[in-house]
Amino acid sequence: MRARKKKWAPAELANNPLIIRSDASQIDDSQGGNLQINSTPLSLRAHFGNHAPIHVEIGCGKGRFITEMARRNPDINYLAIEREPAILAAAARRGWLLSQESPLSLAFLLLDVTELAGKIEPGEISRLYLNFSDPWPGKKKWAKRRLTHENFLRIYESLMIPEVHFKTDNRSLFEFSIESLSMAGWRMQNISLDLHANMSEDNIVTEYEEKFSKFGPIYRLEAFPHRI
Amino acid sequence: MRARKKKWAPAELANNPLIIRSDASQIDDSQGGNLQINSTPLSLRAHFGNHAPIHVEIGCGKGRFITEMARRNPDINYLAIEREPAILAAAARRGWLLSQESPLSLAFLLLDVTELAGKIEPGEISRLYLNFSDPWPGKKKWAKRRLTHENFLRIYESLMIPEVHFKTDNRSLFEFSIESLSMAGWRMQNISLDLHANMSEDNIVTEYEEKFSKFGPIYRLEAFPHRI
Repeated sequence: MRARKKKWAPAELANNPLIIRSDASQIDDSQGGNLQINSTPLSLRAHFGNHAPIHVEIGCGKGRFITEMARRNPDINYLAIEREPAILAAAARRGWLLSQESPLSLAFLLLDVTELAGKIEPGEISRLYLNFSDPWPGKKKWAKRRLTHENFLRIYESLMIPEVHFKTDNRSLFEFSIESLSMAGWRMQNISLDLHANMSEDNIVTEYEEKFSKFGPIYRLEAFPHRI
Repeated sequence: MRARKKKWAPAELANNPLIIRSDASQIDDSQGGNLQINSTPLSLRAHFGNHAPIHVEIGCGKGRFITEMARRNPDINYLAIEREPAILAAAARRGWLLSQESPLSLAFLLLDVTELAGKIEPGEISRLYLNFSDPWPGKKKWAKRRLTHENFLRIYESLMIPEVHFKTDNRSLFEFSIESLSMAGWRMQNISLDLHANMSEDNIVTEYEEKFSKFGPIYRLEAFPHRI
């Protein structure tokens, strides 16, 4: 999703009750307006205030996936992490509108995934969704930015995330991901090399997926770290 | 390849010099014509009589792949294993004809893969090719017959085979194989989810591959056991 200028985005970010603002109180303007990030990890458990599992999506786009998941599964807490303010604002607006119909256990967090380690309490996230992540094609040095690069897998391991659900339409990214996961010792299950050929109703089609699935197969897998 | 009746097959099996007949001398007709299999493992190293690597294909079809590999790579010894006598006869005939043009380090062995363990000396095979193996679709109990089932991976490990090169046009078999390999702790590299989209000249197209690649992608990967 392109981050078009949205005049309403700043107000949405400031006021939407679903957006976690743990750092807002930590802004120290004496440093010339630079955000001073709280070094204490954020407790998602405390935020949600219950013992239900916490599932996280990194890169939520317009939020169709995460809001639909929250609507279908009221016994699970959902968190969407997004680094683009305008995108997060749009997703959070959608989530807030839907939560007016019926309560949703849903939250949004403005965060770059590279800041994930040290930001979230280890052991709190019980599932991670990566949907149509940026494939970072081309230059070899960009491989490190792919969310299934070994460096990110190590971050997920450090957060003790027991499973990652990944889907993409990008063949190269999927090939890269299988290799990266296997080299890092992760196990894979429920692999599909053409998700829409035998699609179950459990698959929530993201905005991106709807648009691009007509050009080729959607690939999907579930991966989990192997602890020896 | 269907094993059609070939009148010339028995003579080919009896006389083709490329066919390894380690057990032929072990036939004990006092047992009513039943083959008494030699319990001593076969030494491929002794058969080839050199120190070059030994690469093995299980299920060689008409033999185009293994003979072309042998033609291109004179510094490697090739062995095709096949359980259907008529198929082995056809492949060995092709190999023998080609070896008349220039010498090939190529051999053929009539063997069911389930007999592989204990039949070949561990440590002799340095690469295994599985090309368009039977996908055994359908019944769950048939999964055990797939050549990438965990039971077979354990046999490959017991033979100390350091790498397996696998290609197939069967999506379900490839999905199964990624899962099976990762669950058995194997690593995967050089994965292609559409081999013919970026085909290199190194890819030798099998008879089957030529016929079926127009109906969908050819999947390929290289896998190797992880020794802790």
